[in-house]
Amino acid sequence: MIILVLNSGSSSIKFQVRQTDGEKVLCKGLIESIGEPHSTIHVTVDGKKISRKLELPNHVFALNQMVQLLTSPELNILKSLADIKAVGHRVVHGGEAYSDSVLVDDKAIKTIDELSSLAPLHNPPNLKGILACREILPGVPQVAVFDTAFHQTMPPVAYTYPLPRELYKKYQIRRYGFHGTSHRYVHGRARTIAGLNNGSSKIITAHLGNGCSITAIKDGKVIDTSMGFTPLGGLVMGTRPGDIDASLPFYLVDQGIPAKEVINLLQKKSGLLGLSGGLSNDMRVLLENAATNPLARLAVDVFCYRLRKYIGAYAAALGGLDVLAFTGGIGENAAQVRAETCQDLEFLGVELDPQRNQQGSGKESLISRDGRSARVYVIPTDEELVIAEETVRLCKPA
Amino acid sequence: MIILVLNSGSSSIKFQVRQTDGEKVLCKGLIESIGEPHSTIHVTVDGKKISRKLELPNHVFALNQMVQLLTSPELNILKSLADIKAVGHRVVHGGEAYSDSVLVDDKAIKTIDELSSLAPLHNPPNLKGILACREILPGVPQVAVFDTAFHQTMPPVAYTYPLPRELYKKYQIRRYGFHGTSHRYVHGRARTIAGLNNGSSKIITAHLGNGCSITAIKDGKVIDTSMGFTPLGGLVMGTRPGDIDASLPFYLVDQGIPAKEVINLLQKKSGLLGLSGGLSNDMRVLLENAATNPLARLAVDVFCYRLRKYIGAYAAALGGLDVLAFTGGIGENAAQVRAETCQDLEFLGVELDPQRNQQGSGKESLISRDGRSARVYVIPTDEELVIAEETVRLCKPA
Repeated sequence: MIILVLNSGSSSIKFQVRQTDGEKVLCKGLIESIGEPHSTIHVTVDGKKISRKLELPNHVFALNQMVQLLTSPELNILKSLADIKAVGHRVVHGGEAYSDSVLVDDKAIKTIDELSSLAPLHNPPNLKGILACREILPGVPQVAVFDTAFHQTMPPVAYTYPLPRELYKKYQIRRYGFHGTSHRYVHGRARTIAGLNNGSSKIITAHLGNGCSITAIKDGKVIDTSMGFTPLGGLVMGTRPGDIDASLPFYLVDQGIPAKEVINLLQKKSGLLGLSGGLSNDMRVLLENAATNPLARLAVDVFCYRLRKYIGAYAAALGGLDVLAFTGGIGENAAQVRAETCQDLEFLGVELDPQRNQQGSGKESLISRDGRSARVYVIPTDEELVIAEETVRLCKPA
Repeated sequence: MIILVLNSGSSSIKFQVRQTDGEKVLCKGLIESIGEPHSTIHVTVDGKKISRKLELPNHVFALNQMVQLLTSPELNILKSLADIKAVGHRVVHGGEAYSDSVLVDDKAIKTIDELSSLAPLHNPPNLKGILACREILPGVPQVAVFDTAFHQTMPPVAYTYPLPRELYKKYQIRRYGFHGTSHRYVHGRARTIAGLNNGSSKIITAHLGNGCSITAIKDGKVIDTSMGFTPLGGLVMGTRPGDIDASLPFYLVDQGIPAKEVINLLQKKSGLLGLSGGLSNDMRVLLENAATNPLARLAVDVFCYRLRKYIGAYAAALGGLDVLAFTGGIGENAAQVRAETCQDLEFLGVELDPQRNQQGSGKESLISRDGRSARVYVIPTDEELVIAEETVRLCKPA
């Protein structure tokens, strides 16, 4: 069964074509600058990258050109459009409506649209991708896989903010959490390779990419996660601060900074970029400069220190720790970050093996010493696999 | 040596008169509603409470009436004003200028005044108390003891927010922490009774009163604390939320709630009061109602859960845990809160003894089981003792 997996943004669409139960990637690619002068479709097949500059005024046009390209004799990835048996979409916000993926129908479209108030930058372009596919691939079933769904098992004690109760009732203000599809994949792999599928398990998954979040998962169910009502909170990220004193936004406005600029500063100029004095939001650059640049050093240290505190906090939430798993660009590749984060965590049963940690980057690996009570893994994430599997699951007749 | 200890607020002043090295309390009291129609001085001597309704238009007048009352034949606490050898003041914000208490001179007054930008509601009334004493007790040395000073040992990795670097340079935006005098007292007692004065120590002190904060102290030095740039963040409090997603203040403004009301809501209507749906900001009331009222139950649970996560986070920061100490109205008296907080922390070496915990309220007590790696104490705080001791220390000739 061939599945098209889409992550549709406001001016770009990431895609993959995957075969049979989602395991084989036939191609992956990116459509960029939709509606802008230099829109382009990039496709990577068997490690070879092909790019086409095309005029792509909107999502319908862009997706249409993309699927045509996939069936072109040159690429020959699909024989015809009819090969696409289903489409799986990444949708950011499922609110409290979706604790599972959903087969897209008119009701789902309406609900995803209504949830735009909680994710105004993400749900509308996700929906554009869904509507465009309805037009281009009529009759092909579509599935929405939500970034928030895996976290919907959180108990009220973890998702309720200590705010006036009516804010939850009136505006649905609570912790939702994001990156759920990644945490779900990594947790599933971690539990399996640790041999904990049939017993109780206390697992922490740390997704460290451009955005970062960490999740506590007990016996297969999320009990807490670091991102909150929005993806601003929790861990330090490339340009977002994670947890800060909530009186600061208004304080900055009182100092004469316009609210719009404060929002921009919190979204685009904080995190690693802000800590490093504007040097970079890229952990690789900071690690290269940490020996000579004190602010690059500070940025790395704050990143690891706050992550270490979250690991301790979530161990307390779980009542202990069986497995800690690192994923995402930083989590998979930055051995130094993993080492600094796990420092002084022997009391939790966490102790890295320096050689395993060094060699474990970029592939599924155990990186902790044997004989400790907690195991630590690097697990490269594969959100598209989960989306493809969910799509197959929901499209197959029962 | 007789010391007057003052905590001067905008319309009220708490005071104590303490003798010789600060150990004996001669009297304590409260001046309330200064500048309002029904101002009153309350004094408690030997468990007996005396109240005087007086017109007290300002701090100078109020303090003058108070010291006159102390020397009155009726109370006979002091023979004459000349008995007061020094005055110790609680001052909220010492910024980065003060990592220790200071003998008040013109320079200190100027600095405390300048630091009002960081604590606009607290430093100005604290300063009013200092200036009034200068007038009423001329030539008597005064000492300022700062709520922030004990926390000034925090390393940059703990006090730096992941925000643009220039905000620290330009506006001194960083974590300061508060309740420092209480944490200092409780830590000192905990370290002593645990017999850790001469070795390394990993101690967490939880001050749980109307405001709540928790501090990680390694080898006698604070390495992290939960309140931040302001006292809004960290743990759940009576009416303040502690840590929330920092995008929420602007989000609420976008929903049409005026900024001023959002600030009021965060300061006065959140925390236990908000969680309990407006039932109460008083933990005693919530505990009484928790069995029958689900929101009272939720408020208690969120309070304890978030506190437990902080204990785990700070154990990770400390690299383990020797001692956990509870103080403040809730910490000293609510055995149920202590029990629920310490639940599932066996992996940290924390295990309460139910009987000790039940009997330990209100007095210095060990409440954990013997033979565990961490000891847990109730330690009633005594900030005034620290202020009196600091005052004696700085006023005595070297």
